[in-house]
Amino acid sequence: MQLTPALARLVEELGKLPGIGEKTATRLALFILGAERTYVENLAEAIWAVKAETTQCQQCFGLAEGDLCPVCRDPKRSEESLCVVEEPADLLAVERALGYHGRYHVLHGVLVPLDGIGPDQLKIAPLMERLRRGMIREVIIATNPTVEGEATALYLAKIIKPLGIRVSRIAHGIPMGGDVEYIDSVTLSRAIEGRREM
Amino acid sequence: MQLTPALARLVEELGKLPGIGEKTATRLALFILGAERTYVENLAEAIWAVKAETTQCQQCFGLAEGDLCPVCRDPKRSEESLCVVEEPADLLAVERALGYHGRYHVLHGVLVPLDGIGPDQLKIAPLMERLRRGMIREVIIATNPTVEGEATALYLAKIIKPLGIRVSRIAHGIPMGGDVEYIDSVTLSRAIEGRREM
Repeated sequence: MQLTPALARLVEELGKLPGIGEKTATRLALFILGAERTYVENLAEAIWAVKAETTQCQQCFGLAEGDLCPVCRDPKRSEESLCVVEEPADLLAVERALGYHGRYHVLHGVLVPLDGIGPDQLKIAPLMERLRRGMIREVIIATNPTVEGEATALYLAKIIKPLGIRVSRIAHGIPMGGDVEYIDSVTLSRAIEGRREM
Repeated sequence: MQLTPALARLVEELGKLPGIGEKTATRLALFILGAERTYVENLAEAIWAVKAETTQCQQCFGLAEGDLCPVCRDPKRSEESLCVVEEPADLLAVERALGYHGRYHVLHGVLVPLDGIGPDQLKIAPLMERLRRGMIREVIIATNPTVEGEATALYLAKIIKPLGIRVSRIAHGIPMGGDVEYIDSVTLSRAIEGRREM
């Protein structure tokens, strides 16, 4: 294909984004080429800025600009509940789900002893320090339902409970709109185990 | 959702790209945030450069850097065949299809008399000038099979044929892998009309 060098380069860079193949990259590149100059400047500037301006929240280790993230800075969020997630993206997913008005703590990973990732490689020490300060009454563990995510949840429950803090795990079961017939058996047995009286 | 300002801005800008919704934009933004600094710099720079460096080819009106596009500059391309397309993206699609080794001419639109788009609004005068120079023996019209694209093809055929140049139209029919049972009737009748002896 006879792309100009600048266009070929943009297609190549866009093609490195997750889920963007060559055809989509070409379509996006041509759109960018045809878009208004102000939009193109804003887009390039926003890409640059997100890397330059985003920091790690000093308290929850989520995404921030400056010292604290928007949640940690928000005085209206409950100090009694803390949701523990693996990555900043998980924090955003819980925020998107609405309904949760407590605080967060981002572990930045899960325990994988075989890969040498133990408690010291995660943000577990600062989590324990936050909990010892005594405001938090419940910790909701929202690590992924993978082997490592489950093991990390169990480990956290074991070390947090002695502080007299309630520890809960987000429910696993059939997703809304899902189909009992086609759901995998592990999920279905978790759904039955976690049944609630109606 | 509690996005940091820089992240919220990037999600907004990415969400303006065609086919990118809020969820995909968030995923891409988080990927960019987590990507290596050199990649992010290259991406922002490539977006900026494509707008700053891309020009219009002085001969075929396709995408170029400098005066001429890669096709017009290529001495190995046949001077005898000229493919007329609506937009630069169509030129790239024909290039991607391989098998065509002639030159191109980009109209930058189609005739839409009701919207005031006549021959003077398209690159038709420079097309006729190229044809009068006498190298080209066949013009292949590859405008889209829409009402306007067809009308533009007919118009071009009418003004080009008197120059003694062969004018052809790309074939319309059932796409490869398509299904005779489910194809629309207009396409099917065009496919029968355009049948070829085996």
